[in-house]
Amino acid sequence: MAAGRGVTSARVAAELRSRIERGELLPEDRLPSERELSESLHTTRVTSREALKQLEAEGLIYRSNRRGWFVTSQRINYNPSRAAFFMDYVADQGLVPFSRQLLKKRIVADDRLASMLEVSVKAPLVELQRLRGANGRPAYIETIYLPEGRLPGIYECDLERSVSAVMLGDYDQQYAVVELDITVGALSAGQAALLDAPPGYTCLCVRRVVRNAAGEVVEYDLEHWRHDSLNIQVRLDNS
Amino acid sequence: MAAGRGVTSARVAAELRSRIERGELLPEDRLPSERELSESLHTTRVTSREALKQLEAEGLIYRSNRRGWFVTSQRINYNPSRAAFFMDYVADQGLVPFSRQLLKKRIVADDRLASMLEVSVKAPLVELQRLRGANGRPAYIETIYLPEGRLPGIYECDLERSVSAVMLGDYDQQYAVVELDITVGALSAGQAALLDAPPGYTCLCVRRVVRNAAGEVVEYDLEHWRHDSLNIQVRLDNS
Repeated sequence: MAAGRGVTSARVAAELRSRIERGELLPEDRLPSERELSESLHTTRVTSREALKQLEAEGLIYRSNRRGWFVTSQRINYNPSRAAFFMDYVADQGLVPFSRQLLKKRIVADDRLASMLEVSVKAPLVELQRLRGANGRPAYIETIYLPEGRLPGIYECDLERSVSAVMLGDYDQQYAVVELDITVGALSAGQAALLDAPPGYTCLCVRRVVRNAAGEVVEYDLEHWRHDSLNIQVRLDNS
Repeated sequence: MAAGRGVTSARVAAELRSRIERGELLPEDRLPSERELSESLHTTRVTSREALKQLEAEGLIYRSNRRGWFVTSQRINYNPSRAAFFMDYVADQGLVPFSRQLLKKRIVADDRLASMLEVSVKAPLVELQRLRGANGRPAYIETIYLPEGRLPGIYECDLERSVSAVMLGDYDQQYAVVELDITVGALSAGQAALLDAPPGYTCLCVRRVVRNAAGEVVEYDLEHWRHDSLNIQVRLDNS
């Protein structure tokens, strides 16, 4: 035990990081337990736990309730600027996507939604909520608001597979301008339960306002992503 | 004391959140101590601390070593797609920007940098590192790599104020394409010390590859932002 005093959590983290980078530990592999780690790396359980928390913060590993620590899956590369179809772009990355509708209802705009969607307060909206992920692991919760006044009959459409497809196909609404706003936040207890994460888990909040060619807002999205599931990639062409 | 048993950390957090939203607590105001909070809200110190940690995860408050908890300053709105000048766009937001050069040196490309910059391994690069922030609070550390082969004499230029200004002015390099890659990560101990944050503090990592009109990479940036200092805003015009 005394021999382990000098091994810092930074060194334990570096050792595990390099095992993951070398492919000795693959996505979804279970890590050794804290006890096993402490014994094999000649350190204390406190130090091992600190190292695991550091790697969790980096998004390299995640904790599954009572089952231990696992190597994070391949992240989803997401380009929020495109009207791309989740099911398609995830499959293109060699992952198996899923999407589950949690809610579809008619609501009226409150002050905040009226201001985001540039409609009057009490204007009719369709609210959709869905849970999406890849390879069986939930990645994000998406809440979508659609202004019925600009998209007559939208509530009756099948929006379960892809809102983008309906907008482009049935409504001929091009995504002329997309305004993105990205911050780091924390999952509420309800969101965390859906995303199989501890309450307060770090998330990326992506807000998207989509405008048609006439400059009208036709969609407002609010996305809460598990931070370890996501890599945002945007390519901007100014030429 | 027994009266406080029913007050959950979620309720304490909601109370503090609404004081901040109503402007009763202003940016950089110090919060009541954990003891004061527990007494005034009739709850336990453990519950108060949980509530504070929740608000910290949301980026609403931050902890300053030994000085207590403070309301987070106004975030910097940052559009990573533009060749905008930090000192200008921060000032435009009514904040007082600062920028401090930490490092300027010539290096040669290792495998990773060669691949990011699309140069040969061992090609000469200029590495710059700087610490930037607003209103006296550090917000991010930026590491910039510039390929000397494509920007002859760049090392001799005054790069302290703005790389963008030098690129556009002296080298006539338009930022034709900007490729962004955004993930959540954790600050290393060294980065955390510079950013006045605890080690492992959540950060946003923004990687930018800038190409000129000929498609050559002329700049590769790596930015580590305190997550509570930043709001990324991107507007994409597809029309």
